[in-house]
Amino acid sequence: MTDRPRTRLFVDAPLSDGAAVPLEGGRAHYLRSVLRMQPGERVLAFNGRDGEWLAEVAQLGKSGGALTALRREREQTGEEGPWLLFAPLKGGRSDSVAEKATELGAAVLHPVFTRRTDVGRVNLERLAANAVEAAEQCERLSVPEVREACPLFKALEGWDPARVLFVAAESGRAAPAVSAVTAHRGRPAAWLLGPEGGFDRAELDGLMHLPFVVPVGLGPRVLRADTAAFAVLAVWQALAGDWTSQGGADSRPPFRDDRG
Amino acid sequence: MTDRPRTRLFVDAPLSDGAAVPLEGGRAHYLRSVLRMQPGERVLAFNGRDGEWLAEVAQLGKSGGALTALRREREQTGEEGPWLLFAPLKGGRSDSVAEKATELGAAVLHPVFTRRTDVGRVNLERLAANAVEAAEQCERLSVPEVREACPLFKALEGWDPARVLFVAAESGRAAPAVSAVTAHRGRPAAWLLGPEGGFDRAELDGLMHLPFVVPVGLGPRVLRADTAAFAVLAVWQALAGDWTSQGGADSRPPFRDDRG
Repeated sequence: MTDRPRTRLFVDAPLSDGAAVPLEGGRAHYLRSVLRMQPGERVLAFNGRDGEWLAEVAQLGKSGGALTALRREREQTGEEGPWLLFAPLKGGRSDSVAEKATELGAAVLHPVFTRRTDVGRVNLERLAANAVEAAEQCERLSVPEVREACPLFKALEGWDPARVLFVAAESGRAAPAVSAVTAHRGRPAAWLLGPEGGFDRAELDGLMHLPFVVPVGLGPRVLRADTAAFAVLAVWQALAGDWTSQGGADSRPPFRDDRG
Repeated sequence: MTDRPRTRLFVDAPLSDGAAVPLEGGRAHYLRSVLRMQPGERVLAFNGRDGEWLAEVAQLGKSGGALTALRREREQTGEEGPWLLFAPLKGGRSDSVAEKATELGAAVLHPVFTRRTDVGRVNLERLAANAVEAAEQCERLSVPEVREACPLFKALEGWDPARVLFVAAESGRAAPAVSAVTAHRGRPAAWLLGPEGGFDRAELDGLMHLPFVVPVGLGPRVLRADTAAFAVLAVWQALAGDWTSQGGADSRPPFRDDRG
């Protein structure tokens, strides 16, 4: 174990040798008042483009602060994670989907309204905040893109047919997850997860007529929508994603540290 | 879709033709005051031994009630799900592990204390209640056994070496999940998930010397302990468990109904 700083921050600004990286007020406050950091202490910073940088706290004030980028620690790598289209859920479950989908490497989080979705509004800022926090803690070099919520079929307009859309479906024709994922390994992928009540029959028929849709079965038990989201992303990563090699995992613990 | 009753109840009593099935006060209250059920209405009942029965509400009073078992709807099947040994987590995350591990088919939930576990007490009743509720909603025919919390190595005393214990491990020797699970397919299985801070070095060394332990890597991102639990159970079910066939899923929606 090296003395790698424990604090990782997602920032907007470019990262390069000696670059000054502004921190907005909330971030500066968190470092100063919660983590009790002082100028000169070190953190890791990433912006989704320039890799991960060792950086030094330059200044922390009431209205903001700044880091100085010191040295690149990891190169940016292509993280071709799957997209997640999901019907928004009640009671904090959407937040938990954002958190865990980030850890499980989703590249895009897209809330979509289906006919039986009984959640009318999605707090995108909160989804994004959950995704940022999870990305900081799980060692990702990027944060998933959070897309504006929209009706399901609008989200599918202009869909690139090269990208397979796996749909967790009640249809008897659905293939077991392992066969479906294996058959489409190497293709860019997205998963669509319906609401707790499932898809409407007409909606499901509409989906099944789309050439890029592959229905997937998730076994004999009825999964909650959030459970299904975690499950499909894990299965995809294990079979077709970046869990297939152990690259880079050696120097890091499997579980994040205990800011629980 | 048949007119299968939407309410499923886990009961203690034996289920057979015409059997009277007592309901304790809390259960009777829930049916009467929350679901507004009346005598004569139908529910499904299961006890983990006798399959799933169509039953009729016989009586609902203040101090309890009773069902009458009418007809067996599904035979009891062997549900050889994996065991889950997990370090208890903070902030409701253990409850969520109980819920989702049940949906993902775990046969045993066993909280174990590791050196870095910073949760001193586990509310087993609450874990069990979460498991029962999830089993009722996910169409399982059984409820996972919730074992008394104990220190990790005590839980491993007298371990049947035929049962593989997959350990989500930081070791560089860990095989990717798909290889590890595939190599041990067909064996009874258990998963061990450490606390947020990971296993202690000596603890991990101790584990790695056990002949039934197989270290498993979960990719390049650092997963929270609860995310890791959901992920490994899903991957195991997809590759070695009951997701490998679609048996029984045809007549049921993939997501439970919306008591969210």
